[in-house]
Amino acid sequence: MGILTDSYKASHYLQYPACREMVAYGEFRCGFDKDTEDTRMVVYGIRYLLETYLLRQWTSDDVEKAANFYSTHKAPGCTAFPFPKDLFLSFVEQHNGYFPVKLQALPEGTCVHAHVPVYQITASNEYAPLCTFLEVILTMIWYPTTVATLSRRGRNIIEAAFERSADAGAASPLLPSRLHDFGFRGCCTVEQSVIGGAAHLLNFEGTDTLSAAYYVQFELNGGEPVGTSIPATEHSVMTAWHTEKAAIENMIDQFGDGLFACVMDSYDYMRALSEVLPSVAEKKVGKGGFMVLRPDSGDPVEAVLAALKAAENVFGVDVNAKGYKVPRGAGVIQGDGINLTSLSQILAAVLDAGYSAEAVAFGMGGGLLQKVNRDTMSFATKLSHVVYADGTEADIMKSPTGDTSKISFPGALAVKRVDGVPTIFPAEGGHVPDEENLLQTLYDCGPLQRDWPLFKDLKQRIAREWAALPKTANVISRPLAEKIQNFKQHRQH
Amino acid sequence: MGILTDSYKASHYLQYPACREMVAYGEFRCGFDKDTEDTRMVVYGIRYLLETYLLRQWTSDDVEKAANFYSTHKAPGCTAFPFPKDLFLSFVEQHNGYFPVKLQALPEGTCVHAHVPVYQITASNEYAPLCTFLEVILTMIWYPTTVATLSRRGRNIIEAAFERSADAGAASPLLPSRLHDFGFRGCCTVEQSVIGGAAHLLNFEGTDTLSAAYYVQFELNGGEPVGTSIPATEHSVMTAWHTEKAAIENMIDQFGDGLFACVMDSYDYMRALSEVLPSVAEKKVGKGGFMVLRPDSGDPVEAVLAALKAAENVFGVDVNAKGYKVPRGAGVIQGDGINLTSLSQILAAVLDAGYSAEAVAFGMGGGLLQKVNRDTMSFATKLSHVVYADGTEADIMKSPTGDTSKISFPGALAVKRVDGVPTIFPAEGGHVPDEENLLQTLYDCGPLQRDWPLFKDLKQRIAREWAALPKTANVISRPLAEKIQNFKQHRQH
Repeated sequence: MGILTDSYKASHYLQYPACREMVAYGEFRCGFDKDTEDTRMVVYGIRYLLETYLLRQWTSDDVEKAANFYSTHKAPGCTAFPFPKDLFLSFVEQHNGYFPVKLQALPEGTCVHAHVPVYQITASNEYAPLCTFLEVILTMIWYPTTVATLSRRGRNIIEAAFERSADAGAASPLLPSRLHDFGFRGCCTVEQSVIGGAAHLLNFEGTDTLSAAYYVQFELNGGEPVGTSIPATEHSVMTAWHTEKAAIENMIDQFGDGLFACVMDSYDYMRALSEVLPSVAEKKVGKGGFMVLRPDSGDPVEAVLAALKAAENVFGVDVNAKGYKVPRGAGVIQGDGINLTSLSQILAAVLDAGYSAEAVAFGMGGGLLQKVNRDTMSFATKLSHVVYADGTEADIMKSPTGDTSKISFPGALAVKRVDGVPTIFPAEGGHVPDEENLLQTLYDCGPLQRDWPLFKDLKQRIAREWAALPKTANVISRPLAEKIQNFKQHRQH
Repeated sequence: MGILTDSYKASHYLQYPACREMVAYGEFRCGFDKDTEDTRMVVYGIRYLLETYLLRQWTSDDVEKAANFYSTHKAPGCTAFPFPKDLFLSFVEQHNGYFPVKLQALPEGTCVHAHVPVYQITASNEYAPLCTFLEVILTMIWYPTTVATLSRRGRNIIEAAFERSADAGAASPLLPSRLHDFGFRGCCTVEQSVIGGAAHLLNFEGTDTLSAAYYVQFELNGGEPVGTSIPATEHSVMTAWHTEKAAIENMIDQFGDGLFACVMDSYDYMRALSEVLPSVAEKKVGKGGFMVLRPDSGDPVEAVLAALKAAENVFGVDVNAKGYKVPRGAGVIQGDGINLTSLSQILAAVLDAGYSAEAVAFGMGGGLLQKVNRDTMSFATKLSHVVYADGTEADIMKSPTGDTSKISFPGALAVKRVDGVPTIFPAEGGHVPDEENLLQTLYDCGPLQRDWPLFKDLKQRIAREWAALPKTANVISRPLAEKIQNFKQHRQH
C-alpha cells in the first residue's frame, strides 16, 4: 500500500497543518463526455478496490520495504524523500495492519447525477494526515463507472431503436445481445479487461471478453452465467481456406443449425456479399440456423446497409408488425468503428432504410473498454473538512477562479434520496439519518461485515434506478447550497 | 489461459481447414497517431506477457474449469459453445502444461518503424489450430509500446528546446526529469500503472507513479533506483491551511533547502503569483533551495508564462550562454492538459518569451498513460502461413479492398538490420541467418533459458537505437516485395 500512490502523497503528512481529523470525498464533476443534458451515471467498482487493496493487511516487513524504497526515491539536489514510516508501523500494530481510515461509498450500481459524492474518506487522530493517501487507488473507480455509464447510454440508444422498429420493443429478448463487448485485446491489461468487461455486463449479456464473463459468473454471481457469445470467424479463418466460400461452408457444416458469424471483408467485401453469399445460400438455408454477417472495414453505415440489402436479396425478409423489414435467418454485426455517435448514426440509417433494429448487432471494442479516461466524466477527490489540533474546525472548498468546473463542496457530506434523486447534504445538522445515507460505511480501519448483492440483482436494480432517474436534476440540497453561499461570503472577507 | 481470450477464439479450432502448421505475426500498422513523417516506435513489453501468461503451467483441473465455463457460455438458440478441451488436455500431458506454440519476438526496447513484425507465433502438428489462441493477450503489447513511443517523442520535443535554449543542450542533467509521470490515478488499474509507468521510465526518470518505479527498480533493475520525484503539495494541502501563504511557508520550513513544488491555483492563481509568492520570497531565498510553481487550470501556455514572469519578478533571472533567461532558484511544472501538442506549444511560447526550457518541467497524466489505444499505432495480429494436412503450403495475406492500411504480409517472416534499419524478409530462402534474425525465439512449447538485460542498459540501448534510426524507412526488403507482388498477381487469376 505504501507504494500504491503518487510520490507526493508520501510527503503530505509533513505538509498539512496539525490536525486531529480530515475528511475528503470523490465526485465525477460532469456527465459522460461533458454532456449537460443527461448527467446520469452508473457508479460501480468500489468492491473490487476495497477487496483488492483495503482488505490487504500490512506487515512491518512491508513497511520496511517501502521505507527502503522511499529512501532511494528522490530528485538530484533534493533531500531524502519523506515517508510516514512511524504512522505506518503504528497502524500495523494498532489496526492489525489495516489502513487507518473510514471509507463510505455509494452502494454498487447506484445511479446518480454528476457531482454526487461516490465515496468519502475520514481519517482521525494521529492518522488524520493519511486521509488522502489512498486517493490514487480509490480514484480508479472512474474506470468501471465510466464504462458502465457508456454501456448504459449505448443501451438507451438501442432501446429507442427497438421501440420504434421491433415488435417487442425494448422488451425484446434480443436486446441484451445487441451491444457486444469486443474490447479484450484493446485493453492495456487483463485486470482492466475484467473490470471494464464486468461494467459492460451490468447492461448487456453479449461479450467476447471471457476474462470478465468468467470472473463475474464465478466471483460475483454464484456461478450463474452472465455472458453470451456465438461461434464466429476472424480473418485468419477466412483466409486459411483457399476460398471464402469454403470457409463459410465449413461454418455451416459446423454451426449451421445454430447462430454463427462470418467476417466478410478479407478480400472484397462487396463481392463477398454479391457473389459468395448467394453461393452458400442453399446450404445455409438447408441447415436452418442464423447467419450473422460481419463487415470490418469501410464506412460503418454503408457497410451495414450493404449487408442488410444482401441478406434481403439472398434470404428474403419478413415485415414485422411495426412495418420494418427483418431478414430471414440472417443479420449483421458491425464491430469496427463503433462509439455512441456511430451507433446512433447506423441505427438511424438502418431504420430509414426500412429495416428493423432487430437485424443489427454491434461490437464495441476499444470504444467500450479503452477510449475513456478520467476526464470523460472528470473525476476528482477533494479535501472537504479539517479538525485542527486545537479542536477548531474548518470546512474546505477548492474554488479556482476561472475554472468553475473544478469547484468542490465544503464540509463532510451525506447523500439522501429526495423524490428518488440522490441529493447532497451536509453530513452534520441532522439532515440525513444514518439509515437514509447512501454513503454507507464499507470499511473502518479494518473490514466490516457485509453482504454483496448477486450481480444479476445488481443488474435489475440498475435498470430500474436508471430509468427512474430524470436525465438531469439539482443534486445540491438547500442546506448545502446555503453552506456554499456562506462559505463564499466568508472567503470574500 | 483457456479464458484469457475472446470467446470466438475458442471456436476457431473447428473453423480452420485441417493443418499441420500455422504461423501468425503481430505488427503496428502505422506510426504514432498515424504520423507518416516519423514512423519510429520503441517496442516494449513482451517480457511481462511472457512471464505472466506463457510461463504459467496449465493443469487438467484448469482445463476442466474452463470447459465447464464454456458449456455455459452461449447465446439463445445456439448450440453449446465449443472449446478445444482435448487439445488442452493433450498439452497439459505432452508439454507439462505449457501452451503449445513457439513465440518469436523483437528484443525488449528494439526501435523499429511501423509494419515491422514485433512477434511471430508458430503452432505445429495437432496444435496448429491454436496458433492465434493467444492473440488477445499478446496484442496487449500495444500498450507499453505505445506509451514508450509517446514518451520518447515527448523527449524529442524537449531535447530540441534544450538544444536551443539550455547551456548543456540535450545533455543537460535536468532533461530526464522534464517529463514527469502524473498518470497513476488516471489508469484503469494498478497493473496498467506498472506497465505504462515502466514504459515511460525507459525515456525519463521523473515519475510519481510509485507502483512502476518500485517494480522496475526491484524486478527489472537489480534494486538500483530508476525514478525520481520531489515533495509537492496538492490542493488538499494548500486548502487545509488558513492561507496559501501559511501552506507555502510550511513547505519552506520542511523542504526549503531542497527542491519542492507548490500548486498555486486553489483560489486565485494570478493573485497567488502576484501577492502570495512575493510574501514568502525572503523566507524561501533564506533557505537556499529550489521552488517549483505548479499551475493546474486555465490555458496551459498562459499559465506557464505567468509563472515564469512571476518567478522573474520575485527571484530574478540569470541569462545563460545561449541568451535565455533562467529564474533564480525557481521553476515551473505544468501538469494540466499536457499532450505532445501542448508540450510543443508551451515550449515554443516559453522560448519566444526569452526563457530557457530548463525553467519548465511537465507533468503528463492521463495523456501519458491512458489517452492511447490500440488504434493509436493500429496494432493487429494476422495469419501469414499455413501447411495443410496434405503437406501443401500456402502463404496468407489479408488484403481488403478499400482499406489498404489493413493489408498483411504473406508467409513466415524474419527481421534483419539493413544499414541499421530493421527490415522485413521472408523467413525462408536463406535471406536471414538465425543469428541475425531480430525475431528471437523466447518460448517454444515451454520456457527457454534467457538472460534479460537490466533496465538501465535497456534505456541506453533505446536512446542509441532511436537516435540512429531515420524517421522513416522502407522496411520491406526486396525479396518480400517480390513475394507480395507474386501473391497479388496470383490472387488476380
